[in-house]
Amino acid sequence: MLTLYQDPRSGNCYKVVLTAAHLGMPLKTVDIDVVSGFTRKPDFLAKNPNGRVPTLEFEDGRTLPESNAIIWYLAEGSNLIPEDRFARAQMLQWMFFEQYSHEPYIAVARFWMVFAPKEKLREKEHLIPDWHARGNAALAVMEGHLRTHDWFAGGRYSLADIALFAYTHCAEEGGFDLKKYAAVARWLARVAATKNFVPMGKLS
Amino acid sequence: MLTLYQDPRSGNCYKVVLTAAHLGMPLKTVDIDVVSGFTRKPDFLAKNPNGRVPTLEFEDGRTLPESNAIIWYLAEGSNLIPEDRFARAQMLQWMFFEQYSHEPYIAVARFWMVFAPKEKLREKEHLIPDWHARGNAALAVMEGHLRTHDWFAGGRYSLADIALFAYTHCAEEGGFDLKKYAAVARWLARVAATKNFVPMGKLS
Repeated sequence: MLTLYQDPRSGNCYKVVLTAAHLGMPLKTVDIDVVSGFTRKPDFLAKNPNGRVPTLEFEDGRTLPESNAIIWYLAEGSNLIPEDRFARAQMLQWMFFEQYSHEPYIAVARFWMVFAPKEKLREKEHLIPDWHARGNAALAVMEGHLRTHDWFAGGRYSLADIALFAYTHCAEEGGFDLKKYAAVARWLARVAATKNFVPMGKLS
Repeated sequence: MLTLYQDPRSGNCYKVVLTAAHLGMPLKTVDIDVVSGFTRKPDFLAKNPNGRVPTLEFEDGRTLPESNAIIWYLAEGSNLIPEDRFARAQMLQWMFFEQYSHEPYIAVARFWMVFAPKEKLREKEHLIPDWHARGNAALAVMEGHLRTHDWFAGGRYSLADIALFAYTHCAEEGGFDLKKYAAVARWLARVAATKNFVPMGKLS
């Protein structure tokens, strides 16, 4: 069985859990508190030299980091990846958008405001207005797309929806107001109604 | 023919040019000065609501943004994408690493130090130490991999090498010292010796 090293509060890890659940794929999970610094210790760096979760481990010891590469691996050949070449590229377009224009502001604001020690937040507080401006710009791009589309690529639920759902559904924890994005809110409800959907976890 | 909207000084655009050249694929290019603000104007936002280059335009008017999604589209079915499922996921792993852990520091430092108006750089100058720390961390991860591998995925030249070459080969313009990364330097020379390789362009 595949093993997922994860912090269940991390949206990047949640993507993997959502994908495996949708596909009915069993997954062993090992929970890690990212705030503890565990992912920067030598044992974990041997699994992922970039020191991050999620990291997927195969039975033969091979490992695969990067949330969007992991969900691609799990979903190959399934209906979570469009068969049409252009739609498949559009799915990847939104997955790269998520990692470049969305996660660094929406996930990072949530991390510092909810999970980081309060004295550390004080060092970062001056960055919050920029995170909010750029995160709202990403939400506005999503809103524009979702006003005329039910899903992000290929006319159906795909990895692009999973990647963008992970940190959008909990964006309010980072100080974003989702009431301003009506089409995004309707899409969040559509994702939550998909087959085998599971809510985000908690650290045990 | 496909049309590429690009700033030829941008590594993200250079990835598309390198991929098309390797594949012997003709490409019409339209040069844009990103510093001019052109990509934030309504005509361009209709092509890419996220207001960035590269953006690829098809003859029927469809458009595709995000450098790594564009090169995926161009290279489907070619030897730039590994046939093995795990190697293909590893290629994507390095492409997501490039957009999340490499480009935001190495490309951004170069942009502000080389292309941005000098008075604007002054507003960003306090960020340079952080860009250099995180960019050097990314280069160290690459160095670790390249000490024992000639290429990033699948044992041969792939889109992962193209994505990482684009801003690594000009990292010194952003104040990074590539002499500290001997395996990276040897890999840069291997990429520059690949079939149909073209150097990065200039704004005409």
